[in-house]
Amino acid sequence: MIFEEAADALVAVGRAFDARGWAPATSGNYSARLGDGRIAITVSGTHKGRLSSDDIMVLGAGDPRRPSAETALHQAIYARFPDAGAVLHSHAATSVALGKTIGDEWAIEGHELLKALPGIDTHDTTVRVPIVENSQDMAVIEAAVAPRVGEVPAFMIRGHGLSGWGRDVAEAERVVETLEWLAECALAERRFGA
Amino acid sequence: MIFEEAADALVAVGRAFDARGWAPATSGNYSARLGDGRIAITVSGTHKGRLSSDDIMVLGAGDPRRPSAETALHQAIYARFPDAGAVLHSHAATSVALGKTIGDEWAIEGHELLKALPGIDTHDTTVRVPIVENSQDMAVIEAAVAPRVGEVPAFMIRGHGLSGWGRDVAEAERVVETLEWLAECALAERRFGA
Amino acid sequence: MIFEEAADALVAVGRAFDARGWAPATSGNYSARLGDGRIAITVSGTHKGRLSSDDIMVLGAGDPRRPSAETALHQAIYARFPDAGAVLHSHAATSVALGKTIGDEWAIEGHELLKALPGIDTHDTTVRVPIVENSQDMAVIEAAVAPRVGEVPAFMIRGHGLSGWGRDVAEAERVVETLEWLAECALAERRFGA
Amino acid sequence: MIFEEAADALVAVGRAFDARGWAPATSGNYSARLGDGRIAITVSGTHKGRLSSDDIMVLGAGDPRRPSAETALHQAIYARFPDAGAVLHSHAATSVALGKTIGDEWAIEGHELLKALPGIDTHDTTVRVPIVENSQDMAVIEAAVAPRVGEVPAFMIRGHGLSGWGRDVAEAERVVETLEWLAECALAERRFGA
Repeated sequence: MIFEEAADALVAVGRAFDARGWAPATSGNYSARLGDGRIAITVSGTHKGRLSSDDIMVLGAGDPRRPSAETALHQAIYARFPDAGAVLHSHAATSVALGKTIGDEWAIEGHELLKALPGIDTHDTTVRVPIVENSQDMAVIEAAVAPRVGEVPAFMIRGHGLSGWGRDVAEAERVVETLEWLAECALAERRFGA
Repeated sequence: MIFEEAADALVAVGRAFDARGWAPATSGNYSARLGDGRIAITVSGTHKGRLSSDDIMVLGAGDPRRPSAETALHQAIYARFPDAGAVLHSHAATSVALGKTIGDEWAIEGHELLKALPGIDTHDTTVRVPIVENSQDMAVIEAAVAPRVGEVPAFMIRGHGLSGWGRDVAEAERVVETLEWLAECALAERRFGA
Repeated sequence: MIFEEAADALVAVGRAFDARGWAPATSGNYSARLGDGRIAITVSGTHKGRLSSDDIMVLGAGDPRRPSAETALHQAIYARFPDAGAVLHSHAATSVALGKTIGDEWAIEGHELLKALPGIDTHDTTVRVPIVENSQDMAVIEAAVAPRVGEVPAFMIRGHGLSGWGRDVAEAERVVETLEWLAECALAERRFGA
Repeated sequence: MIFEEAADALVAVGRAFDARGWAPATSGNYSARLGDGRIAITVSGTHKGRLSSDDIMVLGAGDPRRPSAETALHQAIYARFPDAGAVLHSHAATSVALGKTIGDEWAIEGHELLKALPGIDTHDTTVRVPIVENSQDMAVIEAAVAPRVGEVPAFMIRGHGLSGWGRDVAEAERVVETLEWLAECALAERRFGA
């Protein structure tokens, strides 16, 4: 993938996420691994629903702007998972609320939609999304995430949102869309009295 | 109906359902019966909010692509109901949550909107939507559905979503829109304390 | 107001209401009184989010199509309130759920937004929206509505939706928008534990 | 900032807020401080989702139209905070409901999104948004607000909505978007049982 393609795809993600309320204020950060191995990522402090390609920068390319404050988490995912081509961080009210009200993992079972996650081919399974505590020190978050990821390409930071990844932007978006929908469904189930 | 009309109508359904959150990730599948009796259906694995006519294929026409994993369920409906011209499967958080928290049927009564279902001409009635268990074997689902459909042109698969049909795409869409709205209303009623 | 203006305004209302989920399937019906005293109203059975001017007809003008099934209720409002220039019927999940879970009136108090209703100039008041039982006989609904309307230009039919009116389409839309928002707020209040 | 820029920015805010349901009927009011120190503000009684530049007026410039009924509150903020360049008042069902069900302040803690508020650089803090009682006398509201603002650039009026400000329209919008999202999250947390 060349920069222009990556930038266009990340801009489109921002618009889609913002339309669903998953990118309030300047929250959220999105990246993609380019064909040459470099990482394209959103510039810090931008409104993700109103991105243009100019708001995407390449790490290590001399761009004087500040990349997303969570750049280190993106880099750690790319380093650990050679197949990861894109990482997306959403900030949705429902999944953040879910994460604040349960323990250190979110167990999901009995949903056909689980099959939208890579490697899952039945509803008749349990998927566990790790939840780690928030910190302003990315190294602390990364240390908490490292031993716990792998089963699904996603984790949650408490009070902070969801990170999902995939081979490309489309797959990463599918992972995030799946989990945010499952959080909405969990909320509705709770209200129906389950 | 010729292929081009059917494809355009199914593409529009996908956009409308996705805008309402009824087609997360690559969920959902839509089909229509063409004038020559063949079935046009969504290709497997596509994002339903971003379909183009190229993502609709005709069964048995030599197209090498894989049709929706639930093609057999669509075919069974067309075989059983000669008047059925379109089948739509939605995947909405609220109705899926409802289906996970009740028994093997969803009884709806006292709603003017029931009249939007074919054959219903009063609010003063009870409509029962069958709910069957999910399976990765379409034959198992179909065997559970077969003896229970007919009262309304719809059924639910637990944890998996809602299927509705009609004489044409517009009527099938009306059935789905009606039932998804009624699920939303059931949720709100529950919260108001009913 | 001439027909073309009325039709354009009602088409726009349909699009706005459908976008908010207040016009599922073919529900809802909208009318306006023309300058010559005749009533323009939506044709029965149309999808209100996809209206064109062709879906609006003038009563008593020889149009062979069937007007909205609730035409008699619109006519009764125009007869009783000489200032009424438009009547809009919405079908929103939240207010319908509210109406199904309370008695024969909806009392609203302490809301600044009440001032958006004609004749209300303070939040420090209580507004009562009458709720009548549903019937397939418009004369029965009208007989129940007649003695109870007047305080606010609106009433609810249980399990069926909200009717609001005003001097023109804009004012009628403001009445409906106000009450649907207040129903949403009532729902949120209920969830916050009030 | 010149008038045209301010007007365009406020028109865009109205469209964005209305799309999220934060500007029902004719509620909401938005202003910006121009380069020459004058205040541009929305005309009273307009629908905020359908503003044009013509619906923005400059205070003290001889415009015969009536500015927003809450103009005095905007002016008080500009007088007290010399850096304030824009003030936005939203009217969202969730935050209004929240305000009606708690005491005289809304305490928010443990949210990464708090960092979107000016001067906050960690999630590990508690932010307190003051809530004052509603009145039809702006001087009464202003007297209640005056001793309590400053920690965050925002306050709530019970049953009436949220006011937020910033150096420019973008920052004020970020403040409002942050707090409305946090109210949505509080609602979801409540439902999840926190």
